[in-house]
Parts: sequence; structure tokens; C-alpha cells
Amino acid sequence: MAPQYAPSLRSRLAPLLLFLQTAFIIIYAFFVEVDSNVKVDGETFSNFYAEFQDVNVIVILGFGFLCTFLVRYGFSGSGFNLLVAVMATQWAIILNGIESWYYRGKIRVNLRSLVVAEMCTASVLISMGTMLGKTNPVHLIIIALLEVSGFIVNEWVLQTLLKVNNCSCVSHSHQILGPSIFTPYTTQCMLYSQGNSPVCCLYSPGSVFLWMFWPTFNSVLVDDRTPGRKLGAVCSTYLALAVSAVTAAAIALLSHPKGKLNLIHMQSCILAGGVAVGVSMSAVHQPWEAMTIGFSAAIISTIGFQYLKIHMLLAFQCHDTCATLSTHGLPGLLGWLSHLLLQIRDSDDHTMAIRFAVFHICTLLITITISLSTGFVTGLLLKWNFWRPPQSKKCFDDQAFWEFPHNAVRK
Amino acid sequence: MAPQYAPSLRSRLAPLLLFLQTAFIIIYAFFVEVDSNVKVDGETFSNFYAEFQDVNVIVILGFGFLCTFLVRYGFSGSGFNLLVAVMATQWAIILNGIESWYYRGKIRVNLRSLVVAEMCTASVLISMGTMLGKTNPVHLIIIALLEVSGFIVNEWVLQTLLKVNNCSCVSHSHQILGPSIFTPYTTQCMLYSQGNSPVCCLYSPGSVFLWMFWPTFNSVLVDDRTPGRKLGAVCSTYLALAVSAVTAAAIALLSHPKGKLNLIHMQSCILAGGVAVGVSMSAVHQPWEAMTIGFSAAIISTIGFQYLKIHMLLAFQCHDTCATLSTHGLPGLLGWLSHLLLQIRDSDDHTMAIRFAVFHICTLLITITISLSTGFVTGLLLKWNFWRPPQSKKCFDDQAFWEFPHNAVRK
Amino acid sequence: MAPQYAPSLRSRLAPLLLFLQTAFIIIYAFFVEVDSNVKVDGETFSNFYAEFQDVNVIVILGFGFLCTFLVRYGFSGSGFNLLVAVMATQWAIILNGIESWYYRGKIRVNLRSLVVAEMCTASVLISMGTMLGKTNPVHLIIIALLEVSGFIVNEWVLQTLLKVNNCSCVSHSHQILGPSIFTPYTTQCMLYSQGNSPVCCLYSPGSVFLWMFWPTFNSVLVDDRTPGRKLGAVCSTYLALAVSAVTAAAIALLSHPKGKLNLIHMQSCILAGGVAVGVSMSAVHQPWEAMTIGFSAAIISTIGFQYLKIHMLLAFQCHDTCATLSTHGLPGLLGWLSHLLLQIRDSDDHTMAIRFAVFHICTLLITITISLSTGFVTGLLLKWNFWRPPQSKKCFDDQAFWEFPHNAVRK
Repeated sequence: MAPQYAPSLRSRLAPLLLFLQTAFIIIYAFFVEVDSNVKVDGETFSNFYAEFQDVNVIVILGFGFLCTFLVRYGFSGSGFNLLVAVMATQWAIILNGIESWYYRGKIRVNLRSLVVAEMCTASVLISMGTMLGKTNPVHLIIIALLEVSGFIVNEWVLQTLLKVNNCSCVSHSHQILGPSIFTPYTTQCMLYSQGNSPVCCLYSPGSVFLWMFWPTFNSVLVDDRTPGRKLGAVCSTYLALAVSAVTAAAIALLSHPKGKLNLIHMQSCILAGGVAVGVSMSAVHQPWEAMTIGFSAAIISTIGFQYLKIHMLLAFQCHDTCATLSTHGLPGLLGWLSHLLLQIRDSDDHTMAIRFAVFHICTLLITITISLSTGFVTGLLLKWNFWRPPQSKKCFDDQAFWEFPHNAVRK
Repeated sequence: MAPQYAPSLRSRLAPLLLFLQTAFIIIYAFFVEVDSNVKVDGETFSNFYAEFQDVNVIVILGFGFLCTFLVRYGFSGSGFNLLVAVMATQWAIILNGIESWYYRGKIRVNLRSLVVAEMCTASVLISMGTMLGKTNPVHLIIIALLEVSGFIVNEWVLQTLLKVNNCSCVSHSHQILGPSIFTPYTTQCMLYSQGNSPVCCLYSPGSVFLWMFWPTFNSVLVDDRTPGRKLGAVCSTYLALAVSAVTAAAIALLSHPKGKLNLIHMQSCILAGGVAVGVSMSAVHQPWEAMTIGFSAAIISTIGFQYLKIHMLLAFQCHDTCATLSTHGLPGLLGWLSHLLLQIRDSDDHTMAIRFAVFHICTLLITITISLSTGFVTGLLLKWNFWRPPQSKKCFDDQAFWEFPHNAVRK
Repeated sequence: MAPQYAPSLRSRLAPLLLFLQTAFIIIYAFFVEVDSNVKVDGETFSNFYAEFQDVNVIVILGFGFLCTFLVRYGFSGSGFNLLVAVMATQWAIILNGIESWYYRGKIRVNLRSLVVAEMCTASVLISMGTMLGKTNPVHLIIIALLEVSGFIVNEWVLQTLLKVNNCSCVSHSHQILGPSIFTPYTTQCMLYSQGNSPVCCLYSPGSVFLWMFWPTFNSVLVDDRTPGRKLGAVCSTYLALAVSAVTAAAIALLSHPKGKLNLIHMQSCILAGGVAVGVSMSAVHQPWEAMTIGFSAAIISTIGFQYLKIHMLLAFQCHDTCATLSTHGLPGLLGWLSHLLLQIRDSDDHTMAIRFAVFHICTLLITITISLSTGFVTGLLLKWNFWRPPQSKKCFDDQAFWEFPHNAVRK
């Protein structure tokens, strides 16, 4: 039912952007103010600013340029990611502040709330990776807004039902894990009858930036009042990343028929250790635990990349552009499992251990349920032809959306 | 009168560089010392160091790699920018320290004075953008030194005549605004009888770095002693940048005949909000004010990019390589206007409001006058054929200045 | 004796990586813990974190992407560098902690020990630059581990024999200087009968990042307790880098037959000032001293690049891929000499001056001796054909190690 010509974005994207942006400005005008109280949680502006900028680099540069390996889709990959990121961040600031608005009448913005909003955005950008190239920017923005909402509802449900308000780090990581796997897959299952393979080769600078700044990503929201916990988070993440880079290379060599390395493969799998340690952070106390988690995460991520991607395509007709499932999904589940095992080992008696296990499994189940529902609703909404989905043969092609100067060399 | 062969730089550039560099070393030997008093303005070294590095990244990487979209001029764009940046920074440190030298006999260098010098350099690099490709590096260095001088004379005049010493932020932004528009245009009007269009396509990584680090650029010199002002500057800039990215995309779609996006267009216009908010910073108190400024700035910047560039070329024979007028000029003027309006709204009585308006208009007029004079003098000086201007057909070509290994693939 | 086909890495590299990584995890499990004492040397976590990330960027991005100018070797240059960097850092953390393990039973990891380990890794990556393209990753990892060991033995010998424990900055720089020159050259002399020239043209983003973050690299380990010393280190390095960028351009223009610039040449030589000032840091007190050192360093580095590389190849059959000798070797020696001269000038009497000179010359001789022995041992070990050295005609080619998707455009 899609039109034969590449659908123009003007009549859909431009009004949507202008409408949403105007609505955001009006909401901000009535409900948002800059926090005048500078010292929050014992952190001064200067101490936190460098970490805020690191997160900014992760979200805009790291995730934005992660998909530049799609040869003919580089402009869209980076351009649309910026659009989605800024829309999602503005929306997440509003939703995260609803509780504060309820009690104090105003949503207060400070560096920490910007960072929390950018973490929600990161979760959205991770799951964008599965759908990139097969969607138009209108789809991406709607998915982003719905997914941010699901993410924050999930956090609120966990905090209300399970009282996990004492450890924002765990719940955050869980929510990164959940929506970034299940929402996009459900959406895809609703949307597509088949996937096609894009041409991939170019080097992606985003993955190097993600690798370098992942310790900040894992540690930025760790409470600084308990001395040493933030340092532990940084050291654990750094070592897990180091181990997973080495292991990913070794396993990739072993599983390749000619014993060669594959660049996109390596770029995806070097991050696995960081993701897994991020989810199990609050139970990791020794460097070797982080390293073992990194080792296992790299192995399952590498094997997942090699075998799972094709099976997903055949079995569920889900095509995963950026291999989000093997980079973030499997390592995230492994991190969840490690967290459970480590916590049980550290428990003093059986009652505590069982209580924690039940609690931990509930967290996962709630996250999965909310993600699946969000994905189902998003998928239903986007099936509507009103949004002008790209045709199958126009997928993964910048020419549908971008103007190229006629006498220029395509890069 | 220009020679038929691409003019060699050896006989002009090398002596100029060696002479200036030796002169700088001699001046530094007699008049400059490292500031031994570490705690300046309540800031410790560690608190300020991360922001110093951010500014460094903005100046060297952000502005240096902004013009890499010129396909055949990438080597020159980044290489000459580095040369100009380091010469301008050394010169700005000397000029900024003249007052301190007058009272204490020595110019003291610390992190803050390096940052102030790099802000002057940033203003120079912005205006370089209008002339890049049509000038040789000798021209660029002379323009840089004269423009830094004009910038600092302007600051000194404003501080002496109008007593704006209490708010370095405003005057700084004004001076970034002024010289970066008027000096290069006057220079161009003096220099060129016609401009030619370069081939543009490549992606410019500089603009992404500028977007990410612009909050630092706007907040780094804001006084940290009033709590919350620096945080306000960061949040305002971040939100304005976010809004202007969204708005620029929407307006670009609406104004394009086929409803497509243009990468260079977007790269220029996503910064507009940050520039406008930077100029009106000290009067912006609420997030929605910053967002509205960002919204308007993106609209006029996008429309300016589409229509003004061609009219400038036809009417004044000025060719603007990097669209500096629409990226920095128009949003800067809008910021100046917003500052005026916001300040009038916040004034208690009419006398104050009128007094501020007169003062504010004087600031702009003085800045424009000094910029125009600097541009006129620079233009006169550079008309001299002694500097060997590049021929029209050799413009925007790396081959005039750079050696290419014979068996290498041009990128 | 090498096989006619490109040697597969599977049977050598994968077992080596897995064996080493498992061994590291076991060592870490028994001997390494995260330092729970947060305030070390008066530095808090937040103050040091930004500098830690800068060093991380230098090591992974700066040195990792320094050799991307090799057109057909970009994948290997960046991929193997990451592998080598993470192996070397893990190994350096263990070796650096042996003393702490001896006295307290555990090696404590904190941000400072990560930074010290990354400085050792940087020294290894610098010397990799001489051998890149002519070695396979198995070679690189063995060289890295042996060189880290040599580096730390050297530091231990200097601290034990010469009691230089009070000034970690000097000894560190010396060790960066020493191994990065002599170890790789000795190794090369042992290994190769001839070198061949790779095709070079692409721009290397690594050098820009190194230039920007070199002030952090020189100042990060400077003791913050003496106020002003760290600021002095940053200002000196910044000015020296600025001067050497200008001087390198001028000298390159003068020495080129057609008066053109060469990009790779400039990329190498703009760093010379930073290297030289880094070695002589503790004796540099005034900005003009740093600038003069930067000026001289750029001159000898530029001339070395132009003439020395060819002579080294002819005389010693050593081929230096990244011009490490002229970028790091010659400026390092110049820095050593400047340190000696400045220290003698500052001495009160002759006895002190002579004592320092003897001490300083001993430091150099010990460093050279240890580097030569390490290089000799490494060379002997790597001559063994078991490691499957790449054939001469397969040098500088990614195809030996990396898979390219069949329908993709080579970049």
C-alpha cells in the first residue's frame, strides 16, 4: 500500500516536530524551572560537570555514530539519532519530574536530572539500533516518546510495588535492559513481514567512544556518599571492558571459518562486559568478579552475534540492524543472573537469599511485561499507513531523506 | 597580477611564522610568568581543568574540523585552523595581560587566562569560516592577529566607556558576535570581486563536537560565586540547542522543494540556539525563555541559510564559505535583541529600562564600529599583492599547499 | 620459511589471548582488590576522574588511531592497538602492585593506579608505532608484555639505585623516553633484514586528540600538594605544543623542495614540544623556557623526520612506520638535555651541579641499558618461526587479518 515514490517527509515530519516542540515549550513555560539549590546530594556543580559532559558525549556521539557502519545510511543514522535524542531527553525531563511537580508545583532541572533524562534517552537509542534503516524519522520519534514513557512507568511501578527506591542504580540498569530488548522486538514483530540485509562495512567511531566512556555511564548515578562505591564501579567497568575486548577477539577468531577478525563483530562485542557489569553493579565487590562477568559476557555476545541474528530473522522475522540483542540483550540478562548469584552468595541466611531471588525475578518479569506492552502498543500505532513507512527496496538508503549536492562525491 | 603557477608558500609563510614565533618567545621571556597563586576567584585547579579541556576541544577540534565538508579542502581547513588557533591564542594572552603588566610588571598565565585567550581565538576561527578557501595561510594569520587585537580593543573600550566590567559574560559574547560578523565581511568586500562555490559534501565531525560542548563554551566564564548561575547557563544552553536542532530540521524540510534534509544546512543551524542564548545569557532566567530563543534562532538561521547566502553573493559580492552569517551572525543579533527585551521586562521602572536600552544599543554600535574599522584596515593590508593571494581557479583546493604522496588514494 | 598463504591467526592468537586472559583473572582473584580508601594523596575521586578519562582517551583514541594514515592497514592499526592496550594495562596493574602486595598482601586498584598503568601502556603503544604493519598481533602482544616488564624493572632499578622516589614525574618520563626508542629498534634489528614502505595518506584523527590532551598527559601524575606545580605543567605543555605546531610548519615549508606542507609530517612534529617539555618538566619554571624547548624540539623533530628515517633504513635496516624516533625519540633526548642544563643553571654551587649531572647521566644510561636488553631478548624470542611472522609482501595489509564483507566498498 506504500507509494511507489520515496515518501516525502514534509507533510508528516515537519508538522509533528513543530507541534511537539511547541507543546514542550509551553509545558516548560508553566511547569519547569532551573534548580536554584546548587548543592544536591553533597555534589557540587564542578564535581559533576565533567561526568555530565561524558554522558552527553556517550548519547550524542557514541550512540549517534554507532550505526555509521551502514554504508549508504550514514547521514540518516547520525542525523535522526540527534533528533530522537533531543526529543526523548526533553520528554524524559518532563516525565521524570512529575513526582516533583505533584509535591512542589514545579519540575526542577539540574545537572542530575539532565543526566537521568539522558540515561532514558540512551535506552531509547540502544533500541533504535534494531529498527534503524527500516523506519522513517516519524516512526522513530513516536517510538522514542512511547518508549521513554514505558521506561519511566516501569521505574515508577518498580519503586511503588517493590520499594526499590534505595538503589536507583539497579533499577536504572534493569530499565535499560528491559525496554532495549523487548520493546523494539515486539514493535518489529508487529510491523514487518520480512527484513533485508544492509551493506555494512565502514568503521564506526561511536563504538570507540562508548568503550572509553562506559565507566562514566555505569558510575555517574552511583551514590557518592558511600566512599569507594563510585571508584569500585569505575574500576569494575574498566576491567570488564578490557577483558571482554580480549575475549571477544579470541572467540571471534575461533568461530570464524578462516580464522579472521570481523570489525563490526568486534565493535559490537567489546562492549558486552560493560553492559553486564552495569546491570550487576551493586553486587560486584571484587575486580575478579567483574572480570569473570566480562569474560562470560563477551563469549555469549560473540556467539549470539554469529548465530542468533540469523535465527531471529528466520524464526520471528525480526531483523536486528545493530545486533542490539547480542550487544545489550544477552549481556544484560547475564548481568541480571550474575547479580542474583552474587547476592545469594553474599546473603547470611536462606530466608534472605530466597527473598532476594523472588524480588529479583519479579523485577525482571515486571520489566518484561511493561516492555512487551509498550512494544505491542507502539507496533499497533505504527502499522497505520498514515505515517508513510519506507518501501522495502528503499530501506537503508539515505537518498529517501537527504539531499545530495549533485556534483559531490558520495562518501 | 597573480602568478600562473600555484604560489609557493615558502618565501612568505615560513619567514612570517618564524619571525612571529621568535618575537612571541622573546615577549614571553620578559613579561610572562605562570601564576603561582592557585586559588583564583574561589576556583581550584581541579574544578576548572575539565572545563579548560572542553574549551580546548571546542577550539581545536570543533572549529578546526568544522570546514571538512569542503571535499578538496579538508587538509587546509584543519591544518591552517590549528596554525591560526595557536598564533591567535599566544597573541591574545599577551594582549589580555597588558593591564596586569601595567600594574604589576608581569603578565600572569593561569587556566582562566588560557580560557579567555581561547575564547578570543574562537571568535577569530568563526570568522575564518567566511574566508576559508579563498585566502592563503599568510592572509589567515594576519587577519587572526588583527582581529584578536580588534576584539581586545573592543572589550577595553566597552569596559572603559560603559563600565561593563561587572559582567564579563555579556561583553564577551558581544565581542564574539561583533567581530565574527563584521570584520570578515568588510575584509571580503575589500578583497574580492567575486566568489565561487566550492564542492561540499563530506560530513563535518566538528559541528557535533561544537553542539556537545557548547554548554561549556557558554558557561565557562560565568562567575561561580553566585550559586546557580553557572547551572542556569548550562541548562539554558542545553535546552536551546535541543530545541534548535528540532526546529532547524522542521524548517529545513518545509523550505526544501522536495521535502528533503540537507546535511550541511542542518550542521549549521543546530548551533543557532546555543549562539543566541550565549549572547542573551545574563537575562535568561527560565528554561522556556531559552527554548523560545532557541526556537526563533533556528528559524531565522535556517531561512538565512537558504536565502541570504545567495543574496549576499549577488548584492555585496561576499561569499560566505561556512555560512557564518546565518550560523553565528543572525542568531547573535537575535540574542542581542532578546537580551534587550528580557532586561526591559525585568526592569522595575521606565528610567531603568530606557537607561539599559541606550546602554545596550551603544554596546552594539561600538562593537560594529570597531569591527568595521578592523575589517577595513585588514582588507586594505591584504589587498597588497606581496602576500600572493591564491588565483580564483585554485581556490578551495588542497593541492596548492599540500603534498600528496604520489601513489596514494585521495580521500 | 614462512607459508605461502597469509598465516591464519586462529591457532596462535586465540589460545594466547584466552590463556593470558584466564591467567590474569586468576591472579586478580587472589591478589587484587579495589582500594576502599578514597582520599589518596589529598585527591578526591571527583577531582581526579576527568583527568583519568583524558588519559583513557589519549591511550585508546589518541594512540589507537594514530596510525590510521596507513591506507590499507586502518582496521589492524586501531583494532590491534585496543587489544595490546588492554593486555598491557592489565599486566602493568599487576607489576606496579608487586611492592604493595609484598608489604600488604594485596594489590590495591584505584584511579591513580589505573592512570599509572595506562602511562606504561602509552609507552608501549608509542613503540608499537615503529613495528606496526610488519608484525602480527601475536608479536605485538608478546612485545607489549615484555616491554611493560622492562619499563617497570627500569623504574624499580632507578628508584632503588638512585633513590629517585621523590619525583615520580621525572622517572616516568624517562621511562617513556627510554623503552619507546631503544626496545623497538633493538627488536627490529633482531627481526628484519629489510623494511618496505607502506602507502600513507589518510588523515589521522589520533594526532589531534593527542595534541589536545597532551597537557593532561604531562600533568596528571604531577603532585598536586605543592600549589602551582600542576598549573605550571599544564601551561608549559600547552605553550610548548603551540610553539612546536608553528615551528614545525615553518621548518617543513623551508625543507620541502616545492615549499609545500606534508600532512603526516605535520601530524608527527606538532607533538614534539609536548614530549620534550614532558621529560624536562620538573626543571621548567618559566613559560619562555617551555616555549624555547618546544621551538628546538620542533626543529630537530622536523629535520629528523625528513632525513633520519631514510638513513635509519639504509644504515641499520630499521624501518620506522610512525616515525617514532623523530616524534618521541629526538624530542625526548632534547628534553633530557634541557633538564640537565636548566638544573645546572638553577644549582647554587658547583658540587650540586656536578652531582646532579652525574646522577642525570646515570639515569639515561641505566634506561638505555635496560631498554637494549629488553629489545634484544624480545627480538630473540620473536625470531622463532612458531609465531608465524607475516610475509614481506603481506605487510601493511588488512586482508591478512580481517574479513571484508564481499559486497562492501573498501574505505
